[in-house]
Amino acid sequence: MFHNVYSNVVKTTPLVHTITNYVTVNDVANVILASGGSPIMADEVSEVEDITTICSSLVINMGTLNARTIDSMRVAGKKANALGHPVVFDPVGAGASALRNETALKLMETINFSVIRGNISEIKFLATGGGTTKGVDAAEADRITDETLDEVVAFAKRFAAKTGSVIAITGAIDVVADADKAYVIKNGHASMSKITGTGCMLTGIIGAYVGANAANPLEATASAVVAMGLCGEMAHEKMLRLEAGTGTLRTLIIDALSNLTADVLEKGAKVEIK
Amino acid sequence: MFHNVYSNVVKTTPLVHTITNYVTVNDVANVILASGGSPIMADEVSEVEDITTICSSLVINMGTLNARTIDSMRVAGKKANALGHPVVFDPVGAGASALRNETALKLMETINFSVIRGNISEIKFLATGGGTTKGVDAAEADRITDETLDEVVAFAKRFAAKTGSVIAITGAIDVVADADKAYVIKNGHASMSKITGTGCMLTGIIGAYVGANAANPLEATASAVVAMGLCGEMAHEKMLRLEAGTGTLRTLIIDALSNLTADVLEKGAKVEIK
Amino acid sequence: MFHNVYSNVVKTTPLVHTITNYVTVNDVANVILASGGSPIMADEVSEVEDITTICSSLVINMGTLNARTIDSMRVAGKKANALGHPVVFDPVGAGASALRNETALKLMETINFSVIRGNISEIKFLATGGGTTKGVDAAEADRITDETLDEVVAFAKRFAAKTGSVIAITGAIDVVADADKAYVIKNGHASMSKITGTGCMLTGIIGAYVGANAANPLEATASAVVAMGLCGEMAHEKMLRLEAGTGTLRTLIIDALSNLTADVLEKGAKVEIK
Repeated sequence: MFHNVYSNVVKTTPLVHTITNYVTVNDVANVILASGGSPIMADEVSEVEDITTICSSLVINMGTLNARTIDSMRVAGKKANALGHPVVFDPVGAGASALRNETALKLMETINFSVIRGNISEIKFLATGGGTTKGVDAAEADRITDETLDEVVAFAKRFAAKTGSVIAITGAIDVVADADKAYVIKNGHASMSKITGTGCMLTGIIGAYVGANAANPLEATASAVVAMGLCGEMAHEKMLRLEAGTGTLRTLIIDALSNLTADVLEKGAKVEIK
Repeated sequence: MFHNVYSNVVKTTPLVHTITNYVTVNDVANVILASGGSPIMADEVSEVEDITTICSSLVINMGTLNARTIDSMRVAGKKANALGHPVVFDPVGAGASALRNETALKLMETINFSVIRGNISEIKFLATGGGTTKGVDAAEADRITDETLDEVVAFAKRFAAKTGSVIAITGAIDVVADADKAYVIKNGHASMSKITGTGCMLTGIIGAYVGANAANPLEATASAVVAMGLCGEMAHEKMLRLEAGTGTLRTLIIDALSNLTADVLEKGAKVEIK
Repeated sequence: MFHNVYSNVVKTTPLVHTITNYVTVNDVANVILASGGSPIMADEVSEVEDITTICSSLVINMGTLNARTIDSMRVAGKKANALGHPVVFDPVGAGASALRNETALKLMETINFSVIRGNISEIKFLATGGGTTKGVDAAEADRITDETLDEVVAFAKRFAAKTGSVIAITGAIDVVADADKAYVIKNGHASMSKITGTGCMLTGIIGAYVGANAANPLEATASAVVAMGLCGEMAHEKMLRLEAGTGTLRTLIIDALSNLTADVLEKGAKVEIK
């Protein structure tokens, strides 16, 4: 699947309208470019409809939400829905504050998301309206392991069936599912959690991949998750070789994404279908 | 010209009041420092007059504009005009939304800009109130080539005459013009468009250069454009040598700017006067 | 002291609620992670009480303050005080505008800060309500030298006694004091001032260190100051070895922080008690 998904991105340079947090926004823009897309960040309510209209997809990331941008997310999402553009949701910190909880649930009611990507605690919150988080990280108790994997896959499929969205739960093991089919992905490295924004970056890449593969959101999302994980692995190995640290790791992840090919993706993928 | 322009920056460490977008703001601050200036980012309307008063120049970049910051741009610009400080305008995404279009044209009416820097689509929009863009990038049809160069030079001079601003149109070939004289600059490398914010960074550097060379905005701007292009070339070569990617490229551009000398600038400049 | 302070951070992974500027926020998040903490950036007034409740400490940095976030700083600070969480204040640019001056003094009245970190001009402004700054940098006349050191130490102790806060004045020489005891720290390198945000990063690290060492804010702050300075030195040396520049320097500082150990901290510290 990777060749098709990947070459569609490279061929079409999808414009990705991105409403995201100010913490990791620069990295998100750079990974969208490195992945073959083109990012536009615009979050003022009076222009988001114009901007989303000229784009291929919309990414909504609620990392540093506020009253002004929540409104923009809603308006942009509805417009993208009306235009049939894929919309990707990253519910950063869902579970961590009443504002995030209400915003996430309200956006879920208002907008049809093509893809929802979060850690297991965030996705559980969306599905159940409850649970625990550790700030913007998954709670220890929620971590996906080989023991809990089948259960998480079943949960992801059920939630995908309920929402009509592709559900991407990322962590040490990643699960990307629609109602019928799940990709279990074991790419990535634990050190990626030592830099801020690897989740946000992945959501940006998904935005580019589904923007260029709107008819195929499950495969596009799974490909993006593999790409990010694989680039994280390669970056980690190079970081060790260079005797560097997490500052360099972040740079090397972007490097790896910019040098990625469909062949490398195909060979490096650690994917199982459930 | 480079020695004078450059040594004025290094000697005076110009403070640059920068109202810019949150996507590339960190890189803009770092390239201003690397270029010998000192950045201050402040965008709250109640303080922008105080801040611009203690600075040498003002940069207005509308990359992620909103109602609050548009007001600040207007107030800061008028104050800088009153003080006789150079004001540099980067109309990011002009042509891409009604809000950007109106804001750009309104700011053009209200503020006397010393320098306006954008891609060809953005500058055409400012000049004609129309045209096409591809988000924050220039439209393919607008690209400056050797064939269209004379036409673009004439256009830039006319627009400079009309506005009283130095016009910097940047792309594969750069044109920096006032009413009478144009510098055509062929420094730079295509890979620079694969990282976010090289345009914004250049605008920041122009802010530092004109801040230290207020009497000489044409030469200051041309020097800044050469500096950015040349550092992009050097960074690109080193990126290839290191077998790295676009994450590293961005770091290397800042490295090159921080190590630049007037001699390197003089020797590396690919400049023609038209 | 370093072993205790440091191992408490690593053992507890303190969550640091960070209300900071959008210029350096990504670096602040990455250095908190590199130091063993976990950052959450949240600045909307309706959620800051929720977020600060689940955290170990709160950092308030007024680098790009605006009416909305000033309110959030006040509300978050009062809540953190009520919960007994350490609150760290970085009065970026105090002295540079009426808005910053009023905000800084108002926050000092409203919130009990465990630690206040700034350059000498900023801290003098807080103590006297006057003085000069050069934008976000210390005024030349204020620079701490061996000649003025005793005077600065006495000033820091007096201001610490008056406020009940640990006072961290950073520059070429750093002074970290409570009412009775001052650490004079000579780690660091001048090149650190050529990248934006080394002060903000340090404040973030202090947030992590005091979050994990709430009973011991003086030692926690001094340790963080040594850590940042020492990592700056190591990064500077490596930058020279690599024939790189300030873009790389910034990455190497984060690398060094991520590879730091209590032993390296102990051996590298250039500390004197006054």
